[in-house]
Amino acid sequence: MSELNSKQWFTEIFQPSGSAFSLKIHQKLTEVQSPFQHIEIYQTTDFGNLMVIDGCTMVSTRENFLYHEMMSHPALFTHPNPKNVVIIGGGDCGTLREVLKHRSVESVYQIDIDEQVTRLAEQYFPELCASNHDPRAFIMFDDGIKFMQETAAESVDVIIVDSTDPVGPGEGLFNRAFYQSCLQALKPGGILVQQSESPLIHMGLLNDMRQAMKDAGFAALQTLNFPQMIYPSGWWTCTMARKDMVFAGFRRDDVMDAEFETDYYNADIHQAALALPNFMRRQLVG
Amino acid sequence: MSELNSKQWFTEIFQPSGSAFSLKIHQKLTEVQSPFQHIEIYQTTDFGNLMVIDGCTMVSTRENFLYHEMMSHPALFTHPNPKNVVIIGGGDCGTLREVLKHRSVESVYQIDIDEQVTRLAEQYFPELCASNHDPRAFIMFDDGIKFMQETAAESVDVIIVDSTDPVGPGEGLFNRAFYQSCLQALKPGGILVQQSESPLIHMGLLNDMRQAMKDAGFAALQTLNFPQMIYPSGWWTCTMARKDMVFAGFRRDDVMDAEFETDYYNADIHQAALALPNFMRRQLVG
Repeated sequence: MSELNSKQWFTEIFQPSGSAFSLKIHQKLTEVQSPFQHIEIYQTTDFGNLMVIDGCTMVSTRENFLYHEMMSHPALFTHPNPKNVVIIGGGDCGTLREVLKHRSVESVYQIDIDEQVTRLAEQYFPELCASNHDPRAFIMFDDGIKFMQETAAESVDVIIVDSTDPVGPGEGLFNRAFYQSCLQALKPGGILVQQSESPLIHMGLLNDMRQAMKDAGFAALQTLNFPQMIYPSGWWTCTMARKDMVFAGFRRDDVMDAEFETDYYNADIHQAALALPNFMRRQLVG
Repeated sequence: MSELNSKQWFTEIFQPSGSAFSLKIHQKLTEVQSPFQHIEIYQTTDFGNLMVIDGCTMVSTRENFLYHEMMSHPALFTHPNPKNVVIIGGGDCGTLREVLKHRSVESVYQIDIDEQVTRLAEQYFPELCASNHDPRAFIMFDDGIKFMQETAAESVDVIIVDSTDPVGPGEGLFNRAFYQSCLQALKPGGILVQQSESPLIHMGLLNDMRQAMKDAGFAALQTLNFPQMIYPSGWWTCTMARKDMVFAGFRRDDVMDAEFETDYYNADIHQAALALPNFMRRQLVG
């Protein structure tokens, strides 16, 4: 039986499912205690740099493309003409970079409560911050819950909630009150998309989110599946909720003609991510 | 930083990608040194029983359905009328159980070199062995390479290679000579399907397999993606190779009308598994 030396490995233990995931490291590059959370950066042997927040793996250089592409492109290619986008959380700026690839987008407000996440991303994940100086980008450090409450009604096309899990600072981003303020801020046909955990080990959380989105008044939901090696179970989802309208496909022709490169996302992958395994069909609510 | 006590956790270290995966355990239930490999069975806290071969996680009670369904149903629903099936490896009998759900199937020969795997599966994964006494099932303990060499030409509809990785006993199941004997044993239009590792961390192995299948003379290949929590990266594939014919869809109507239950597989999932991410489109050979 193997044991992992903590000088050579970073390990995230996920107690609720009795599982753990580890990456081999060369060294810890830095750690910061912000007013909100504990942030560590490691240099791994095979996955580039790794950001860890409150003990949970957040971003690695090698495989963050999966998450960032799936948090942005499905929602933006489902919306007919996304111009005004809000990102709640997203401090590593990887989602922002993907959103700004869309020419239709005129403004992106990114509101992460913790400035330290962005400062560390600039230093250790500079490729994710490559678009931070785009004139359409407005990077703010503030409370996302308050920001959504204060956003003008019917002013936003797409809201992306790119947060930590529903414990700690992220907790208030997973309930009906927050979703109601998102609903109000969205224009008709607008889309909220949020990371929604693993169907294999968090079905309760996923269903709680879906129920709260429905209770808040969203008209339709879609949960999309994708692989994410460094998150518990390696299988992750995001859930899209639409205001006033049902989902009716996505802009497949525009995906095919997209003038930017992606490493994971394409039209077939978008369609594929919507396929639900039988156990999800049986268990999903909303 | 967390450390995992080896009395409470089983850990598989995957050195080539500097990653590790662990499941929390109550106890080791048994271990056996067979003539071929070292087999351990653990009782985990959250995933039921776990079979480990030569240090690698093979099967857990909770999530083996993903692998076994994807190793069987896509190939059997792609073939127009699968009657005679061969499983090379597959000693835990989970793939056999799925294959026998298909009414068209008249015989399944399962050839695993290691009888101990099946004996332990009968004891610790009895649900996987539920169909072992089906009169259509022929369970043999022998060398799969030799078996395929000696199989009558054009006598098999589907060959499923459900083996360990290409080291140790499984090594000879991943090369051109083996694929040539499979090709000869298949009827025209017949399908070979084999587990083909993780696209995120084993692209070289996957491409070597695809190249060897092409070199052996198979007419067309399809690689399918699916999640598999306990295998390195949590993202796994199988690859189908067809004799004499290209792939032209699958029997979608028969999937919809299937008279058996699955937990993962359905027609949408079959189609979704065929979607290739951009990085795979760029890198896959064959």
